[in-house]
Order: sequence, then structure tokens, then C-alpha cells
Amino acid sequence: MTITWFNGALVDGPLALNAADRGLTLGDGLFETIAVHGKHAVWLDEHVARMAMAAQELTIDFDEASVRRGVAAVLAKSIFKSGVLRITLTRGVVTPRALTGIGHAPSLLITLAAFEAALHQSLTLAVSSIRRNETAPSCRLKTLSYIDNIAAAREVSARADDALMLNMAGNVACTTIGNIFLVRDNELVTPQSDQGILCGITRATFLNAASEIGLLAREAIVTVADVLAADAVFRCNSLRLVSAVTKLDDKPLGTRSLAELLNLITKRTAP
Amino acid sequence: MTITWFNGALVDGPLALNAADRGLTLGDGLFETIAVHGKHAVWLDEHVARMAMAAQELTIDFDEASVRRGVAAVLAKSIFKSGVLRITLTRGVVTPRALTGIGHAPSLLITLAAFEAALHQSLTLAVSSIRRNETAPSCRLKTLSYIDNIAAAREVSARADDALMLNMAGNVACTTIGNIFLVRDNELVTPQSDQGILCGITRATFLNAASEIGLLAREAIVTVADVLAADAVFRCNSLRLVSAVTKLDDKPLGTRSLAELLNLITKRTAP
Repeated sequence: MTITWFNGALVDGPLALNAADRGLTLGDGLFETIAVHGKHAVWLDEHVARMAMAAQELTIDFDEASVRRGVAAVLAKSIFKSGVLRITLTRGVVTPRALTGIGHAPSLLITLAAFEAALHQSLTLAVSSIRRNETAPSCRLKTLSYIDNIAAAREVSARADDALMLNMAGNVACTTIGNIFLVRDNELVTPQSDQGILCGITRATFLNAASEIGLLAREAIVTVADVLAADAVFRCNSLRLVSAVTKLDDKPLGTRSLAELLNLITKRTAP
Repeated sequence: MTITWFNGALVDGPLALNAADRGLTLGDGLFETIAVHGKHAVWLDEHVARMAMAAQELTIDFDEASVRRGVAAVLAKSIFKSGVLRITLTRGVVTPRALTGIGHAPSLLITLAAFEAALHQSLTLAVSSIRRNETAPSCRLKTLSYIDNIAAAREVSARADDALMLNMAGNVACTTIGNIFLVRDNELVTPQSDQGILCGITRATFLNAASEIGLLAREAIVTVADVLAADAVFRCNSLRLVSAVTKLDDKPLGTRSLAELLNLITKRTAP
């Protein structure tokens, strides 16, 4: 069961979407997925701020008041102990018919569904042949144009749980749905923001708070060799928080306990 | 006015779209745009075949009979001398909630709208900072994940009509909406299929037919210097056929007449 709010009102059944809406026709829009505990949306302000910045860069109309109203409306209806909130914003219908046309009446879709993250589950990775393009908005921003991530996840799905994506320079970027951190001695290292990654909210939280558990967090250029040599490797994202990565292309990775990291980040999901 | 067919029937007004349809939520689908003269869809078989191949690669359900029925239904209603037919196919709703989930009930949207291509209009190009990623399905296939092309077109729109996109190696790929050909002496040269390009139907037609006007067509690696040194440069796409490119980043390009090329390709748009 999904609670759905679309362009100003809660709706049952399908959306009434303009057939020319550029979200549908050209992946021309943005989204955020947000963990929900009861009626609390975790890091909501950070997600809304990220969408606002991306909308400004792509010149998509963004009305924060509408977003806040829609989020409040679906949360008020929440019957889930644990859920996933998704905010989807499109450029709307464009005139004239051109990639550069001006958007009118952007569509705003907000949904809330049950979602129970398996917080202590580890996962395996395999390197995808599909690279991240550090020059591309589709890699830096959380846009609706997600097909390369989908294709990468599907490419490796028979041999791993998620795909590790390298960038144009061959360095480590991120996975299809999360950022990567390495633990090396007392350091917590993650690929730099210019490496073709989507800069996650959980990633930012770790960068800001790692010192509380005695780790020195820093951004760097990260290679596959660095991953293989790390004391431990983990993936983070907003729904699953932090997951230990046990293998890369069937090679076992370091297994230092991630309990402290999970504890650190879980504490920060409270209201 | 647009004639719209959606999932089996002609519809008036908005689509009834599932809020979880992956075409809308993740640009997870394909499209084709096709020139229409009266009730004749130009190169329809080639467009349908290209969509079928891409759907197979992305494991999206493709039902050619439905596509043919929908196209026939909108063409039967055509009141346009000249129009654009668009076929949009999505993966539908996916279970379980994962990039690798299995698609159910793909959405098929077919629209027909008036469109008068300015066939003798020339255009200017500027190089975009956004590269084409030759490892990415979003660059090789005509997917709904089009945001990088949109961003590139918008980036240069104040100084040129379309963006010339280079690939990861820095060679010429294509524009945001068409392929590039250079004329050099008696040669017609276009970037190879492995250069991060979408292989257009008009491009294929030129490669097959150029010998009829005494030109030797071939695929090659093409540089910006090659473009600047060419006798003439043109962009081709399925709606606008062939357009002369007069400038690249404000540098004038060769101006050999393209009348023969336009004549060659226009002849092939007849039923």
C-alpha cells in the first residue's frame, strides 16, 4: 500500500499525468528518497535542500512550500512503523517543443510506502563496465534519468548485490544506490565530490561526525586497489544507512567491525 | 493538438499512469520520434526495429503488435500535413522495489502532433562541457534518461542552436538531438558507432545511400580539428533530416552546398 500525493492533493489510484510531462518523456526531473520512522522523515531538511539546489542548477521550478505540504499530508496518513518517502519533481510541460523549452506546471509527486531496511545485512559488489561520467548532471544530481544505474545493477546482479561504478578516469565513484567509504587505520576515506558521484546525505553525515568515534574522515581519489587493501569497506545510503561490503568481484575485503559506524549513524536518524 | 493513444486505446486528456511506473520515476524506458507526412510514418520499420533491439538489451517487455496497433490508431486520426509521431515505452511497475526488479505491465504511449520541420534552415553549434559516455546505455540507446542532453542544450543555448558533444576520449560524438557528418572532398565521414553516439536512422540512410550522389560514406574517429577543417558539416535527425552547420564556437565552417544531400534524403522519406 502506498500513500500518494500529486500536485496538491492526496490521490487514490493512478495519477492524471499530462502525456507531454517531461518527467515521463525525457527523465527531466529530480527525486529524493527518505527514510521514515513512524511520522518522522529522517534528514528531511537536507533532502529538500539538495533537491532545491539541483532544481536551481537545472532551472526546474521548485516550490518548497508545496513540497512541505505534500510531505506533511502523506506523513499524517502514515500507518507504517518504517517507510520510504519519495519526492519526485518534474519540469512539467515544455514550450516550445525543444530540449531548451521553458517548463510550465512542474509535477510534484510525493509517495510513502512501507519499507523495512535490513540494517545489519552485508553485501557484495562487482565492478560494472558502465562508467560514471563526472561531467554529467545525471551522475552529480539525483535526476529521474537513472537508466545507467539500472543497467549497471542489472549487469552484475547474477554475481553481486550491487555494482561498483568507476569514473571516466578509472577511479572508484560509488555504487548504483549509495556512496562508498573505506576504513584505513583511523581514517574514513570516500571518493571526492568531483569523482562522478552523487553526494549523499548519509555520506555528508559521516564526513561531519566521524570524529566522534575517533575516525578522521576525508575525501580522496580512491582506486580499486585501495578498496581491496582497506581494513573495511562500506556502502551508505539514506534508506539502508550503512552496510558492510564483504567482497569485490569475489575477492574478500577487510572485515573490521562496522558496529560503531552503524551506531553513530543510527543515532542521527532520531527526530 | 495532440492525438494520444495509451495502453490500448485513444485517450483524451491526461494519462492514467501508475505512480510507480519506472518511466516516470527513473527514466526507465525508451522512445522514438518519427516524421509523419499525412498518414505516412517515415522509416517506421527502422524505428520499431531500433526500439525492439534496445528493449531486448534493457530487458524491457516489447510487444510489436501493440506498437503497430497504436501507431495505426493515431495515424488514422491524423489531420496534419506534417507531424511528429512519438512512441514511448516504459518498464512499467517493478517488483521487488529494486533497480533489478522485474517489470510488469510496461506502459506504451503513442502520440501524434503537428510538426513542421524547417528543412532548409542552417544552425550553429557550440561544444558542451558535458561529455558523452561511450560505456553508458543512456548514450547508445534512445532511453527516457535524457537529462544530460537537455543540460547540454541549455548550457549552450545563449550562444548556439545546438550543443556538439565530445566523448570521454575528447573526440566528436554527436549533438543533443542528431548525428554529425563531415564532407571532405568526395568523402562523407561520421563518428563511429562506438564513439558514445546514438546511431540514428537518418545516419544509417546516409551511410547506405551516399554513393548515389558520388560520395564515399565511412565511419571514423572525428576530432574537433576535423570539423573545423571540413569542406562542410551537417547534422542529421529523423525530423529535420539534414541541416547545414555554419559555425562551431563562433568559428565559421565550410559552406559547400548541401542541396544534393537534402535531395537524397528527402526522396527516401516518401511512402
